[in-house]
Amino acid sequence: MQPNKEQQLQFVTDRLESGTLQSVQRLVSVLHPAEIAHLLESLRPRDREIIWELVPVEFVGEVLVELNDEVRVGLIEATDDNALIYAADTLESDDLVDFLKDVPEVILNTVLESMGQQDRARVESVLNYDDDCAGGLMSLDTLSIRSDVNLNVVIRYLRLKGEIPKSTDKIIVVDRDDNFKGVLPLTALLTYDGGERVENLMIKENVDVIQVQMPIEDIALLFEEHNLVSAPVLSESGKLLGRITIDDVVDVIRDESDHSFMSMVGLDEEQDMFAPVLLSAKRRALWLGVNLCTALLASWVIGVFEATVDKIVVLAILMPIVASMGGIAGSQTLTLFIRGLALRQIGRANVNSLVIKELAIGLINGVVWAFFVGCIVSLWFDNINIGILIAVALMINLVFAALAGASIPMVLQRLNIDPALAGGVILTTVTDVLGFFVFLGLATIYLL
Amino acid sequence: MQPNKEQQLQFVTDRLESGTLQSVQRLVSVLHPAEIAHLLESLRPRDREIIWELVPVEFVGEVLVELNDEVRVGLIEATDDNALIYAADTLESDDLVDFLKDVPEVILNTVLESMGQQDRARVESVLNYDDDCAGGLMSLDTLSIRSDVNLNVVIRYLRLKGEIPKSTDKIIVVDRDDNFKGVLPLTALLTYDGGERVENLMIKENVDVIQVQMPIEDIALLFEEHNLVSAPVLSESGKLLGRITIDDVVDVIRDESDHSFMSMVGLDEEQDMFAPVLLSAKRRALWLGVNLCTALLASWVIGVFEATVDKIVVLAILMPIVASMGGIAGSQTLTLFIRGLALRQIGRANVNSLVIKELAIGLINGVVWAFFVGCIVSLWFDNINIGILIAVALMINLVFAALAGASIPMVLQRLNIDPALAGGVILTTVTDVLGFFVFLGLATIYLL
Repeated sequence: MQPNKEQQLQFVTDRLESGTLQSVQRLVSVLHPAEIAHLLESLRPRDREIIWELVPVEFVGEVLVELNDEVRVGLIEATDDNALIYAADTLESDDLVDFLKDVPEVILNTVLESMGQQDRARVESVLNYDDDCAGGLMSLDTLSIRSDVNLNVVIRYLRLKGEIPKSTDKIIVVDRDDNFKGVLPLTALLTYDGGERVENLMIKENVDVIQVQMPIEDIALLFEEHNLVSAPVLSESGKLLGRITIDDVVDVIRDESDHSFMSMVGLDEEQDMFAPVLLSAKRRALWLGVNLCTALLASWVIGVFEATVDKIVVLAILMPIVASMGGIAGSQTLTLFIRGLALRQIGRANVNSLVIKELAIGLINGVVWAFFVGCIVSLWFDNINIGILIAVALMINLVFAALAGASIPMVLQRLNIDPALAGGVILTTVTDVLGFFVFLGLATIYLL
Repeated sequence: MQPNKEQQLQFVTDRLESGTLQSVQRLVSVLHPAEIAHLLESLRPRDREIIWELVPVEFVGEVLVELNDEVRVGLIEATDDNALIYAADTLESDDLVDFLKDVPEVILNTVLESMGQQDRARVESVLNYDDDCAGGLMSLDTLSIRSDVNLNVVIRYLRLKGEIPKSTDKIIVVDRDDNFKGVLPLTALLTYDGGERVENLMIKENVDVIQVQMPIEDIALLFEEHNLVSAPVLSESGKLLGRITIDDVVDVIRDESDHSFMSMVGLDEEQDMFAPVLLSAKRRALWLGVNLCTALLASWVIGVFEATVDKIVVLAILMPIVASMGGIAGSQTLTLFIRGLALRQIGRANVNSLVIKELAIGLINGVVWAFFVGCIVSLWFDNINIGILIAVALMINLVFAALAGASIPMVLQRLNIDPALAGGVILTTVTDVLGFFVFLGLATIYLL
């Protein structure tokens, strides 16, 4: 059995230290391109360049495509031009386009010039599509046939071609002008008699086709919900442009997942885990700076009530409780809404009942925890007024936290700002500022 | 073109209000089971049960399997026994097993009794596997052939069968005792001459096979990295047990993604967005309770320094800055490590250099922000001592935040506790407690 990823990494690191590279080369030669990419991403940059030299030349292109953006750009710089031009030659069209987007312009031009005019025009057309839509994701390697032939003709044609593009579960049927007509499942070729004509067996209605401008999130949902292996991509006028396959969709789903997970703390999933310390520090600093504004705002609110805190020091001890409970409750609602919006499960039709539900939960937990915290505080400081005060403040903050958690992602989405990236900071600002303001404000009014 | 999800939801909600269900029935009849499931999850429970009645009986089983756990259990209760028994009959073996895990025991027994002895034994064997491993995910619908026949025989056999299981891109080759021998790609059937024998064309070496105990996270990585559409599942002795297909793997990836995203705030991705308010409030309350302990601990730390805060009220104004900056910096490191561990990109071989890198980033950002915050505070309160104090405290907290963010997920993983679930709370406890302690402690020593 193949060693698992942790064992692989350990093995490679040990061999790099002892300088015995032959066995590493053997390992690399049996790994798939995506596995080599995974391994490279897990290595320190200096080890990475040593292993990079061991990657079989016919895999260089595919490995580059599988790497995250930052590691890819780094290794492209470390690769000589001829190897890159050769690598371009090994790639299928969808990978080639991704690859060409990151290589130096001189290589881009060399590769484009070396291609036939037709291929070149096709690749250039894909280069113009946005990465976030079907056009940027599709492969040009389609297998298409006409409808007026029988299965034996199709099978003879396939035998003549000798190979079928990856993840082909159906053959696309087009007319002479490349207009999409339907699909013929590969299994039909195998289960029906060879004399049957394509037009009688092909599926014409309710075929899953993808418009070239369809956003990749919707493509992912379509593949998931219809259990697709591949789907044709059509132009607005219904011409066949290309094909999207499940392996690329899986990468989209993984990228989306990484993105929403990491952007919640201001990280970018396409960055190198081993980026130079100074560069990483600079990137993280931005996020710390944004959050410092929140913290300073909260401090300013406390400062407004300086006189109150000066007189009743217990308030200083307790005020973080109100702010932090609000932040926690709000982030639950926020997360629920961010996911619901991303999966298209929250829309105008149901948002009102969901907001009401969240407010009700905020109110219930507000009351429950207000009572509980109120009792603890009353006993702790032997002062029932402080207990009542924190209870009321907590309740108010939890209800507003629910409201903020529900409305922030919706407003951000309407403004075309990624809710996963900005939602948390804004929520914390609201719950901190409001938490301190309500607690200290009420204290100023009632306890002084 | 099909209406998008938001339009669908709006349409259904409008029609439910006006009571015109016929057009809703038409919509439901053209949706795929997973789309119906998606729609049902987006509806309020009372609307959900109305739509549930409109689901074509032949889809009931598949829709149930696609729903999240809580919604599924609710709708199973709302469905009569005969419909459930019929639904079981419409399901393929992997879905059937998922389905049977949630139905009342009486239905489980009826369904099992209605099956032939062989099928029953097979389904029961799968029921015994854990959901988290290949055995629990696999389908029993495999297509297997012997190696000593030629392609024409295989094609005749397929035509005789008349159908091929979903997502079949290769046929599994076994011997007479079901021992795995290799795979024959479907495309080989189409591109080679019919007289060729299976044993000469089948792939025997480096075939991707899955051991029945393989964890589903590793299966997902394998499918992703090897671009698989299907893979055979083998017993320890190499017997063919079943098959895993990409559509199920896609669901695993989506579930994992939802899980890590939602468990960061203590939510469960298998719960109903529209669960009753009281139930939801109770579930959320647990998380608030856990976090209250953190907040109380932080308050207690502040309380220890009550005398100090009483004398220098500015400390109360500034202390949240130290704690919150530590929390933000720590959560970046934490997120990076949780993801790295989940993707198996962080292991013993590289963890030390990563921890050192994180500490260095913590130190650099500590120094940078310490200086910056120190200046702001010095000017704000016209007091350079307070500025120096907060600078030192901030620096210390940022370095320890990095250390905590890196070590907490690793320790939790070793203890078999989900880092995504527990990591954030523990980190906040560390950064809050340490932030307040260092800031107020230093103030007590140097400013009093």
